[in-house]
This record gives sequence, structure tokens and C-alpha cells, in this order.
Amino acid sequence: MRAPSDDVRSAAVEVLERLRARRPRVHCITNAVAQAFTANLLLAAGAVPSMTISPEEVADFVAGADALLVNLGTLEGSRRAAIGIAVDTANEKNLPWLIDPVFIDRSRTRVVFAQALIRLRPNAVRLNYDEFATIAGAEGTIEALSHFARDTGTVVALTGEVDAIADGKRVARVANGHPWMSKITAMGCAGSAVAAACLAVESDPWRAVAAGQVIVGVAGEVGAEKARGPGSLAVAILDALNDLDRATLLARAKVS
Amino acid sequence: MRAPSDDVRSAAVEVLERLRARRPRVHCITNAVAQAFTANLLLAAGAVPSMTISPEEVADFVAGADALLVNLGTLEGSRRAAIGIAVDTANEKNLPWLIDPVFIDRSRTRVVFAQALIRLRPNAVRLNYDEFATIAGAEGTIEALSHFARDTGTVVALTGEVDAIADGKRVARVANGHPWMSKITAMGCAGSAVAAACLAVESDPWRAVAAGQVIVGVAGEVGAEKARGPGSLAVAILDALNDLDRATLLARAKVS
Amino acid sequence: MRAPSDDVRSAAVEVLERLRARRPRVHCITNAVAQAFTANLLLAAGAVPSMTISPEEVADFVAGADALLVNLGTLEGSRRAAIGIAVDTANEKNLPWLIDPVFIDRSRTRVVFAQALIRLRPNAVRLNYDEFATIAGAEGTIEALSHFARDTGTVVALTGEVDAIADGKRVARVANGHPWMSKITAMGCAGSAVAAACLAVESDPWRAVAAGQVIVGVAGEVGAEKARGPGSLAVAILDALNDLDRATLLARAKVS
Repeated sequence: MRAPSDDVRSAAVEVLERLRARRPRVHCITNAVAQAFTANLLLAAGAVPSMTISPEEVADFVAGADALLVNLGTLEGSRRAAIGIAVDTANEKNLPWLIDPVFIDRSRTRVVFAQALIRLRPNAVRLNYDEFATIAGAEGTIEALSHFARDTGTVVALTGEVDAIADGKRVARVANGHPWMSKITAMGCAGSAVAAACLAVESDPWRAVAAGQVIVGVAGEVGAEKARGPGSLAVAILDALNDLDRATLLARAKVS
Repeated sequence: MRAPSDDVRSAAVEVLERLRARRPRVHCITNAVAQAFTANLLLAAGAVPSMTISPEEVADFVAGADALLVNLGTLEGSRRAAIGIAVDTANEKNLPWLIDPVFIDRSRTRVVFAQALIRLRPNAVRLNYDEFATIAGAEGTIEALSHFARDTGTVVALTGEVDAIADGKRVARVANGHPWMSKITAMGCAGSAVAAACLAVESDPWRAVAAGQVIVGVAGEVGAEKARGPGSLAVAILDALNDLDRATLLARAKVS
Repeated sequence: MRAPSDDVRSAAVEVLERLRARRPRVHCITNAVAQAFTANLLLAAGAVPSMTISPEEVADFVAGADALLVNLGTLEGSRRAAIGIAVDTANEKNLPWLIDPVFIDRSRTRVVFAQALIRLRPNAVRLNYDEFATIAGAEGTIEALSHFARDTGTVVALTGEVDAIADGKRVARVANGHPWMSKITAMGCAGSAVAAACLAVESDPWRAVAAGQVIVGVAGEVGAEKARGPGSLAVAILDALNDLDRATLLARAKVS
């Protein structure tokens, strides 16, 4: 049996190649701040984004997609209705979906909504420490992550300086990325969209989500070498992801 | 009589100069993904964008504008109502307007809405092959385009590696652009907004729309020479369009 | 007593250092065109943006913030309701807030709404000449600004080639910036968000808003030296603001 870290390295390479070959369609219900950058990061990864939040249209779009992203940022009325329809459609069609419960630490109504969504069994949840603490009622330790993953039947990806991805049995830690990434709005949201794209081409959600963390983190590191700050990194990461290849991924992946 | 291709080359130069001299106001009802890039591309072309989709306000904005863009991406309830009011206002004031039926191949309700709008006689429709096939029920051949243009009384611009612009009598083919442009979200939407701006300063809609294709395509080629991928091209095309001049347009226009 | 211009120079340095040290949370109700660029400019300044416009959530977000921005661009129904709740929450919690009445010169309903908001006593109003003329019924002279500031009890920042900031007693003129900034969509909106962030860390709103004008204007000038046009300036200003230091601010501030 391979070590989990080797498995994640292989997954990153395989997933990237499948993204380019299959060009999965990813429907994103995401916040208005994140939409454009998310679409551009998906295109650079090889995926094809769609973004409508119209309740009348979202079922058609999800039914024609290969994966669904549900992001709770800027959660106004129409987005809530669209999310309900989208998740039902994804579950009916057996499409993978991922939830990113942005800023649930700031809004009580958002917590309740996020908990209800997690009971609908997303394939993965991707969130930061404050968001995990709010939803799980526990610090983001490896034990708490694994417990949450087992309890909810979902893969959990906790993002931070080092990301941790747990499915209740396995844990991967990914240390790729660059500090400027935390000063680019929607970088986390867009990373979640790439993780959703990875779910479309890799049936093991733990491998898919861990691969997504490596892919985006390495693209950020490569991009940072051409950048002068967060503004130019937001541009350079798109170029780097569009050009990313197997050799660069293997040379730079920091997985443990 | 000039060859159509020479006429389009002249149109591109004339239209660009008028955009800079007259700074037309273009009201855009467009999707949330596209709004910021569209506004920036219009500013770089010399136009002045406005973007509100509030049904209470849109009539005032359209009445004070020189052209209207209607883009069907992310078509939620309020956008539909705003589009109806905006088109009525444009038709009352005799303002040119252009429709971009984004992703109608993905949503049945969007097709019906697009067909109803086309009966309100836009000056131009700008769309890709899948969208044309959905709305016209035919492959995007020159014959089908010309037939659709005659039938609906509108100029049709079919975008792709080579763009085709038909008004039922004339056809122009524009081969400018760069492959990275297809990996920038909202590039097509923003191109439609520039075409709407061209309608504001050129009364022959076929010349206006063909000119817009040349202007954006050449800016993309010039920008690509400074870019490393789709991320930096989205930035460089704005710089290139802002700096674009007559000599560059004439030297690079690929029209047949 | 120091000259007002020296006081503004000191304020710019102090405010920038406090932004970095305190990382104030700024809740922004702003238009969809401006959201992403605004969030990125706030992050580069050192602040932490949030952006929801959901009426159900906005009170929680404002209650947890250090300042509020209210921008009237793309003012559809849900934004109006959210603004009412947000302003009430800010006033209850004694949080500073700033209003940017974008494009009120184009829409009659927007003027009425803006006037009602100004009666709720924002700490500052930031607007351009056309917008000031519409709301004040007078040309944007120093006398008219000071009169408006006294009448409404708010600081007024009039933006243009040279900005003027008045509180009824003091006036500062800030001449920093670059012409390309007027060709970047949402530059004004994002500048207002930075001014709101400054209100969070400086209790004298006249000093805070004047400091914000210097900080953004200097970042624009530094960025322009690395840029080739408005596209690359929109990127470079983020890098420049992220790197901005006391020495650069003092060397470049053009205050009178």
C-alpha cells in the first residue's frame, strides 16, 4: 500500500491530466465577489464554468454539469432558493458537489443553513479554521476533522498555512501556496471551485480534494515568482495554472 | 463599390476614432460574472459604461445612454424585468441595442426568452455556434446566418476562431484574436458590449458590429505579445485597446 | 497649530500604520461591478472586507465590523433593504459609515434615496462633481462643499483631478493620482471603501478621509510606474498599496 502522501502526489498529476482531457463542466453557485476570478481559475485548470443563480434555470444547468460548487458568500434570497434546487438536482443525478461555508462565523442564519446543507451529504466541505470551529463546535485538530468527516460522511478540507484533508480514515497535509494568496479576494472560493472540478474527474473525493489543494497551491507558488504582490499574483496564478504540467507538480508538491 | 472587406477595415478605423471622440454611454444589462471586465473593456475602447439592473432605475439609465447591451448570462428574476423595461425604452428612444444570448444552449427557459427578445428587433445578435444552433435550429453556415438575419431583420455576428457577420446581404469574416481569449471569462460578453458601443457611433449595424470584432480581435493580438497566458492577457488587452491606433488596426485587420 | 496640509500628511502615515496593525473589518454594500476590486484594494490596504447584501444577514455582518461603506451603484431592491438595515445597525453601534452616491446624476429615484440616507448622518460622503451638483444643487466650489458639510454635519470628499475634502471648517486638497485611474472601473468605489477603512482607525473623519485620498492616490502613482495602461494599473495599484510605506507616502503626498 502506498503512503497517503505518495497517493496524493499521484492524484494531483492524474487529476490535472483528466481536467485537461475531459474539460468537466462545473456549475458554481458562488458569491458575486468571487464569480469572475472563480470562472477564470476554472478555465485555467481546464474546466468549463457556469454561474447562474436563477432559480428558474439552475436545475437545467446543474443537470448538464459534471460537478456543483455551493458557496455561501453573499447569501441573499435568490441564492438560497437556487442552492436548494441545485443540490436536489445534483443528488438526483448523482453528481459530486462541494460546499464552501464562507464566513459562517459571522452570521447566525448562515450557520443553520450550512448545517442543513451538510445533512444533504455533500462529497466535500472546504473551509478555514474559524468556519470549522463555528460549524463543528471544536478547534480544527486532525482528530476533530476526522470525527466530523466520519459523522457527516463527507471529506473535510481545512485550509490554512498548511491544509489538512480528512475523510475519517485518511489525512493528507498540503503545504503548498504563498502568503500573498491570503490577500487576494475569492482565492479560497476559487480554490473550492477547482476542488469541485477535481471531484468531477476523480471518484475518490479525498484524493480529488487533496489533488485540488496541491494543484492550486503549486500554481500559486509558480505564479508568485513572476509577481510583485497580491495584485499581480491574482493574474500570474492564472497563467501558471494554465501552463502547469506534471513535472512541475511532482517537483513542487509538499504533501505529508 | 468597395469590397466588403475594405469597407470593414475602413469601418474599424472610423468607429475607433468616433468612440474616442464621442465617448458614447453604453448601458449594459449583463451577468454578474462579466460586469467588471465589460466595464473595463468599454472604458479602454473610449466608451462610458453603466450597469444597473434595478427595474426602478433602468429606464432612466437607458434613456440617458447611446446604446444598450442585453446579455442573458445569470438571468435571475430582477434581470428579466430590467431587460423588458430597458428594451422598451431603447425602442421608444430609437437607441441601438444588441443581444448576447449567452448559454441558451443550456437552459430551455432562456431560449424562449431570447426568441421573444429577438422579435423586438435588436439591431444585432452576437453569439457562438452552440447558441446559434439552439436559437436558429440550424448549423452556423453562412447561408443559415444570412437567412436568420433576413428573417429577423437583425445583424448576426457568429463568434469563433473566425467570426462571421451577416445582415442578409453582406457577409464579413474576421480572423483576428488569440486562442487565450477563449480562456478568459466574459471575453465574449465584453466583446458584445464593445459591439454595442460601436452601434452608438455607426448607423450601419453591419459595419458597426464587424468593426467591433476587428477592434477587439486586434487588441487581443497586440495584448498577447505582452502576456504569458490568459490571466495576463485579460490585463494586457485593456492596455492594448486603450492604446490602439489607426495604423495598428489597418496593419493587423484580417477581414475577408 | 499645524497647517492643514501638514496635518493631512501626518494623518496619512498614522492611518496607514493603524490599518496594518489593527486590520479593521469593513462591511461594504457596494455594486456588483465594484465588489471584487473593492475587496482587493481593502486587503492591500490592510483591512478585511465583507460584502453580503442579504437583508437577513447584513445586521450580523455590520455589528461585527469596524466601519460601513454604502455605495449606491446598481441599486436593486435587495440592496435598498440591506442598506436600511446596515445604516440602522451602524448608527446603533456607533460605527463610522461613508456613503458614495454613484451615478445619482443619472437616476431620479437614486437622488431621493441618497438624500434620505444623508439625513441619517453618515460620517462622510465621497462623490464626483456631477454627483455633488445633483445632490447639493450647486457647483462643487470650496464654498459649496463647506456649506454642504456644515448643513449635513458630514465630511464631504469631492473627487476629481484634485480632490477636495471639507468638514465645514477645514479644507484639504489632494493632488495625487494618475489619469489612467479614471479608466479603471470601480476605482472611485474602491477608493470610498478605503476611506471607510480609514474612518475605522481615525476618529476625526476629515483627517481619515483626507488620509485615504493620499494613500490611494500615492499607490496609484507608484503603480503607474510599473504599468502600461489602465489594465495593468488596476493590478499594479494593488501591489503598490500592499507595499506602501511611510517614506513613500511622505515623499509623494501632494496636499495643500
